[in-house]
Amino acid sequence: MAETVTIHEKPLRHFCEQVLMKLGVPAEDARVTTDVLVVADLRGIDSHGVARLGRYVSGLKEGFMKPTDQSRMIKETKATALLDGGQSLGQVVGTRAMNLAIRKAKDTAVGVVAVRNSNHYGIAGYYAMMGLPHNLIGVSMTNAAPLVVPTFGRISVLGTNPISLAAPAMNEKAFVLDMATATVPRGKVEVYNRAGKPIPHGWAVDETGRSSTDPARVLNALAKRLGGGLLPLGGEGEDLGGHKGYGLALLVDVLSGVLSGAATGLQVYADEKRPDVGHFFLALDPGAFRPLDEFRRDMDRLARELKDSPKAQGQERIYVHGEKSFVRMEKFRNEGIPLDPRVVQALKKIGTDLSVTWAS
Amino acid sequence: MAETVTIHEKPLRHFCEQVLMKLGVPAEDARVTTDVLVVADLRGIDSHGVARLGRYVSGLKEGFMKPTDQSRMIKETKATALLDGGQSLGQVVGTRAMNLAIRKAKDTAVGVVAVRNSNHYGIAGYYAMMGLPHNLIGVSMTNAAPLVVPTFGRISVLGTNPISLAAPAMNEKAFVLDMATATVPRGKVEVYNRAGKPIPHGWAVDETGRSSTDPARVLNALAKRLGGGLLPLGGEGEDLGGHKGYGLALLVDVLSGVLSGAATGLQVYADEKRPDVGHFFLALDPGAFRPLDEFRRDMDRLARELKDSPKAQGQERIYVHGEKSFVRMEKFRNEGIPLDPRVVQALKKIGTDLSVTWAS
Repeated sequence: MAETVTIHEKPLRHFCEQVLMKLGVPAEDARVTTDVLVVADLRGIDSHGVARLGRYVSGLKEGFMKPTDQSRMIKETKATALLDGGQSLGQVVGTRAMNLAIRKAKDTAVGVVAVRNSNHYGIAGYYAMMGLPHNLIGVSMTNAAPLVVPTFGRISVLGTNPISLAAPAMNEKAFVLDMATATVPRGKVEVYNRAGKPIPHGWAVDETGRSSTDPARVLNALAKRLGGGLLPLGGEGEDLGGHKGYGLALLVDVLSGVLSGAATGLQVYADEKRPDVGHFFLALDPGAFRPLDEFRRDMDRLARELKDSPKAQGQERIYVHGEKSFVRMEKFRNEGIPLDPRVVQALKKIGTDLSVTWAS
Repeated sequence: MAETVTIHEKPLRHFCEQVLMKLGVPAEDARVTTDVLVVADLRGIDSHGVARLGRYVSGLKEGFMKPTDQSRMIKETKATALLDGGQSLGQVVGTRAMNLAIRKAKDTAVGVVAVRNSNHYGIAGYYAMMGLPHNLIGVSMTNAAPLVVPTFGRISVLGTNPISLAAPAMNEKAFVLDMATATVPRGKVEVYNRAGKPIPHGWAVDETGRSSTDPARVLNALAKRLGGGLLPLGGEGEDLGGHKGYGLALLVDVLSGVLSGAATGLQVYADEKRPDVGHFFLALDPGAFRPLDEFRRDMDRLARELKDSPKAQGQERIYVHGEKSFVRMEKFRNEGIPLDPRVVQALKKIGTDLSVTWAS
């Protein structure tokens, strides 16, 4: 693989915002959408970072993503709300929905907001973390295009349906779990394919529905819609708990898709002109249960207990979720964000097409 | 293994209730505690069924489980509550807490109840399913004695910390996910040990913190507190997503332990006289988001879509979570509950000690 190109956060943000604004996205919505993408890169989740800008550009050009916020309230109670996303940018709708959940949590200790008729919203963790400055626990989930094969199945029916929960700590970093419910993302199968390496059992199945170590076969079966796809966390069958990962993916679809009335399972992205993605957001005030400082101190204690516990042979460190990303974020903020040269090339092409100057 | 002994539900319930009442548990609390145990057996989760009665008998005799309900409200808002379990039976406190969450959900569309200072509460699914007759989505989690080794760790710091979510359907069975966040329960390692069979990689680590296929070594290391324990869902290291299972176990401890102010991590059961287990309960009204019948119909549609989707080579059926257990429940209700003869022997011994007639 070619060496990465390092770009500083500020010009990268400026470029993405300009691109989105050229396509009719208002400045503040362009800022929010860009923020979700750049924060993904800063946290090291480059699969969900600016590398995806092209998809949003296509979506806006083709019209199935609306440049201005078309979301509207469908039903509301003191503690809950249902939004129709109006096919707006997932990041704009997601941010609005999580802000609403936060406002409700400040009012009633807990807020739950479901969203239907939205688009891909980026990293789930972004929304969960929005609760942190308010000292709230944040939860965020979304369904996604089918890519995961249910236990004993042969075709992908569920998305990689991520779950994120963020909880504030005191001196330790906040706990930020942000995980897809598949064992690995498709991107990882693609990396092994390019390297000509076999993938481990437990990552994916081919068109027979059986675990395969051949990434080319898996990707080919997916591309030609012959079947196969990613395995849920826990891998093939039930021996290593694959049915649990499958259950978590389904849980996410129940809360994101069924609860909101969005598309679910095979229906997500079935209509390319209306992906009808569903999201779920929850904010919870720990201060409604115990003094906030006690909660935050105990978060620290638990994190320290895990990190200080004895290490496995050959290992030097135990991590708490989110920790690696916070370290990466600080480093990338100072030193710039390393981008794959192919991503930079694609971004430059977008810039040329839309007459936006590439900014480094 | 010797053949199982089949006992009908009714006499089994009667026996357990009598035993509990002999130890000072009021009739209604004995009924509830027994119900949680017998429902576990009926659903086929025999590790959490009447086989555990002995532990409750010991707890009550030794005094760290209180026979009468000592739980009390510590803090309450319209949508949330914190209960101190007062070291009462986990089933009694759990039922009270979930009923409270249900009442709140009927009032404010969502209810969240955290519990500290409780005891082992049986299967998480029992409480999540309590929402079903009310057409509510139910969620239940609990922390537990340390048995799971964090990714890159060498000793168990977290419990098998289960997550359960139940959601009502229309004509299909309700979706009931009820899963420990470890790959397998300790009982499964014990079964392989008794059979003299190696365990698969990804189930457990020995005292070096590395995945082991030797169940005797794993169990010995655990018994002698040398280290080792169960692996989180996803197995060893990060290759198959073990850090995700570890993150889920931690999420459960944050919501059950830290939120409530109960013990967390290594502190759970650290004081044998005060296990200080923490639970988390949530009830959510789908009717606050969309017409209830639409929600239930879409639950059916998603379940059917999964079950009707093509099967993997060599497989005949795709299940939706809870389905197997509902079938088993019907069968066992009609034909009786199959119990391990060693369990029956232990129950009879309890009966003899307390002058309660064994009832089959």
